[in-house]
Amino acid sequence: MHLVLDHGFLDCQEIMGNELTVVNSARVSFGKQKNGIGEEDTRLLRYLIRNKHFSPFRHIMFRFHIKAPEFVMRQWYKHVVGAEWSASSFAPFHAWNEISGRYVPLTEFYQPESWRSQSTSSKQGSGDLLDSDTQESCTHVYNEFLETMNRTYELLLEKGVAKEQARSVLPLSVYTEAIWTCSFQSAMNFLELRLDKHAQWEIREYATVLQKILNEKLPLLMSIWKDEKTGGGSDL
Amino acid sequence: MHLVLDHGFLDCQEIMGNELTVVNSARVSFGKQKNGIGEEDTRLLRYLIRNKHFSPFRHIMFRFHIKAPEFVMRQWYKHVVGAEWSASSFAPFHAWNEISGRYVPLTEFYQPESWRSQSTSSKQGSGDLLDSDTQESCTHVYNEFLETMNRTYELLLEKGVAKEQARSVLPLSVYTEAIWTCSFQSAMNFLELRLDKHAQWEIREYATVLQKILNEKLPLLMSIWKDEKTGGGSDL
Amino acid sequence: MHLVLDHGFLDCQEIMGNELTVVNSARVSFGKQKNGIGEEDTRLLRYLIRNKHFSPFRHIMFRFHIKAPEFVMRQWYKHVVGAEWSASSFAPFHAWNEISGRYVPLTEFYQPESWRSQSTSSKQGSGDLLDSDTQESCTHVYNEFLETMNRTYELLLEKGVAKEQARSVLPLSVYTEAIWTCSFQSAMNFLELRLDKHAQWEIREYATVLQKILNEKLPLLMSIWKDEKTGGGSDL
Amino acid sequence: MHLVLDHGFLDCQEIMGNELTVVNSARVSFGKQKNGIGEEDTRLLRYLIRNKHFSPFRHIMFRFHIKAPEFVMRQWYKHVVGAEWSASSFAPFHAWNEISGRYVPLTEFYQPESWRSQSTSSKQGSGDLLDSDTQESCTHVYNEFLETMNRTYELLLEKGVAKEQARSVLPLSVYTEAIWTCSFQSAMNFLELRLDKHAQWEIREYATVLQKILNEKLPLLMSIWKDEKTGGGSDL
Repeated sequence: MHLVLDHGFLDCQEIMGNELTVVNSARVSFGKQKNGIGEEDTRLLRYLIRNKHFSPFRHIMFRFHIKAPEFVMRQWYKHVVGAEWSASSFAPFHAWNEISGRYVPLTEFYQPESWRSQSTSSKQGSGDLLDSDTQESCTHVYNEFLETMNRTYELLLEKGVAKEQARSVLPLSVYTEAIWTCSFQSAMNFLELRLDKHAQWEIREYATVLQKILNEKLPLLMSIWKDEKTGGGSDL
Repeated sequence: MHLVLDHGFLDCQEIMGNELTVVNSARVSFGKQKNGIGEEDTRLLRYLIRNKHFSPFRHIMFRFHIKAPEFVMRQWYKHVVGAEWSASSFAPFHAWNEISGRYVPLTEFYQPESWRSQSTSSKQGSGDLLDSDTQESCTHVYNEFLETMNRTYELLLEKGVAKEQARSVLPLSVYTEAIWTCSFQSAMNFLELRLDKHAQWEIREYATVLQKILNEKLPLLMSIWKDEKTGGGSDL
Repeated sequence: MHLVLDHGFLDCQEIMGNELTVVNSARVSFGKQKNGIGEEDTRLLRYLIRNKHFSPFRHIMFRFHIKAPEFVMRQWYKHVVGAEWSASSFAPFHAWNEISGRYVPLTEFYQPESWRSQSTSSKQGSGDLLDSDTQESCTHVYNEFLETMNRTYELLLEKGVAKEQARSVLPLSVYTEAIWTCSFQSAMNFLELRLDKHAQWEIREYATVLQKILNEKLPLLMSIWKDEKTGGGSDL
Repeated sequence: MHLVLDHGFLDCQEIMGNELTVVNSARVSFGKQKNGIGEEDTRLLRYLIRNKHFSPFRHIMFRFHIKAPEFVMRQWYKHVVGAEWSASSFAPFHAWNEISGRYVPLTEFYQPESWRSQSTSSKQGSGDLLDSDTQESCTHVYNEFLETMNRTYELLLEKGVAKEQARSVLPLSVYTEAIWTCSFQSAMNFLELRLDKHAQWEIREYATVLQKILNEKLPLLMSIWKDEKTGGGSDL
């Protein structure tokens, strides 16, 4: 389990398939199957990526346990299903189950370590960190907000309000958990979009950890992917 | 445009196809096409629904403009893509675009007309309305929370915090907007799950309006669907 | 590897997840995870199936290697993606790679052991076996056809015709191979449709083998599924 | 209706949405909607395509009636669902219904106008046309094959063999029909793959007609798409 942000994590529970799975799924087109990875197989992997023949990469599957703030989680599954403005493709959706605020009270919240300025070059992103006085006052006002919110949430629950209605006050910084089953292609789509410097810093923290996990589990494939996707300069 | 809750709406912008589209999509299997709907076509529609031959119903498409609180919107698209605990099937996802709190400040919030008690028979639903004293005190504390939250959000923006980070304080009651393109089958899946008495009251308000729109636009098909799905007693 | 028909097979190459995966994917909604399967977990599995809460079942994944006649394979993947008249739902598509007649000559063909009469109760199915004289004459004429077809195919290739064009003469009885990655829910959808007595006999042979494999690999889950789906009388 | 090959066609039955739909689906992210297309909207369309922000393009939907040889149709829907070796992305699958050889006898077959040589640079494609003597002898042997096949098919049906079993002899050149509902993004995916010089000539004939239809129906959008996708030299 890899810790992310102040209370979050990303845990790869299980993997199905590897480089040989991709190679054999591609070679089934020629009516062939192999038992191990050789020189010509790494060439085939390289060829498939270079020419965007991604379908064989959908046979490698992962299952992750994710804990992240709601605003990260929304970007996550909206990307996964292609419901994102910036989604270039539709990554085949696999499976997603998530904690529900209708069932259980949610009680953990993300507290930013530092506050970032509004980007001046883009309407959506962040720029530099704000100065240290502003950091302090922002953290102060944010913590006061969290206290009021917590008190309100608890009060509503105490007064007998249904959890499904009391959660109206929960902020987008509330932590949630999910089980996500996805293919290697989905994971790569996620990395390409979320390692990008236009992605929000918090979700890039998760993308960075996801990349680290994949590098450990599938070193050959990740190294070829990186080679093909970059001339050396990109994040991926 | 149909108004829903205190500031929401559901607007059907366009429809493609009708009962004849379904009939002809089914009849293409037999190598036949027709120009109008007759007796035997209503029998065919009835047969398709009764035997769960739903694929021909995917050729009727709708485009909706939705404005709803975030906690409703989440249930909506998570249902649409099958990322819901209770999703029995995977409704083919079509298209979804939504307002982004990274681009624009969000400033409208849902205020419940009345507060419901926690269900005693289920861990997730609501029971009866709370008594009138509790109503008043809940509304009071909720409004105070909204004021604090608004003040905090504005203060963070004033201090120059990026919109993507300031939105951390936005509660699940914040209103968002989306454009949703879906098939008749997706719409029916949504109705079956969201008209159900276990669905949260707020999303049932949207489902009720969706049903009303479909009844107006496709009266014959909706009447057959209702007949087949009920022995008269169900919500649908 | 399980042999099916005269030259076909179904081979389960790998499985990811098991009953505990389903239980934990469902329990993430309540913010819980467990380490083993107990009494209350089998009750939960039963409850999920009975109430059609299928999303947790999408986290169990399989990878199969299939060899089947083209007319079986077409029904297979068209079902998988919901492009079937009789598809009640859209099973999340995962991954499919198949042998290509543009790359390699295809040289094996399905030879029916016995010939079935046209169903009298349905426009599409089969009835009883034809009498033994008819069996013999049908096999004779079919074999003569295969010889002509083979000779034509080889002649076209010899004359230098491109494989992609020469394959025009290949009949729907030609054997093809595919790698299929799917979820437990997809597999169950396939079984429900293809074990049915209205399904073509040849594809039922594959469904029967698939059911046998799943019974071996996931005995507890399959036994609960069968219980819930039947009052004892259904095929599943 | 546009005729394709010797007996095929492509007919666009209905369209939902246009350039304004794309613009407004994108602008919903900023909380804006517009009533007409101006200068800045064409700039936005250009920006979306250049940066691969394709999700707003999924709100334009088409419904087509297709008649094509089986080997073309297979490439078509396997591409549509991403079950193609060379599929770079997964185009959201919408709806597909097709004629069934289990219900009706199929009686039309594609007859190539000319025979192409095997490509020498690729294992899968075609090279130049074969010489005129070979053309004649290939056509002769192909027609004799069709006669034998037809006679066999009819004989099996006459002897009472079920249509689902008799169709085993139908070749991949048999014509089938389908109703296809897809988004603009799916249509563009199809064009990019099937207008390519590596695509089989017969399916390129359909792609060429599809492009012609889209040029007529959405001239502004298609012209921007073409600009962005090419430096002037590509097929699209």
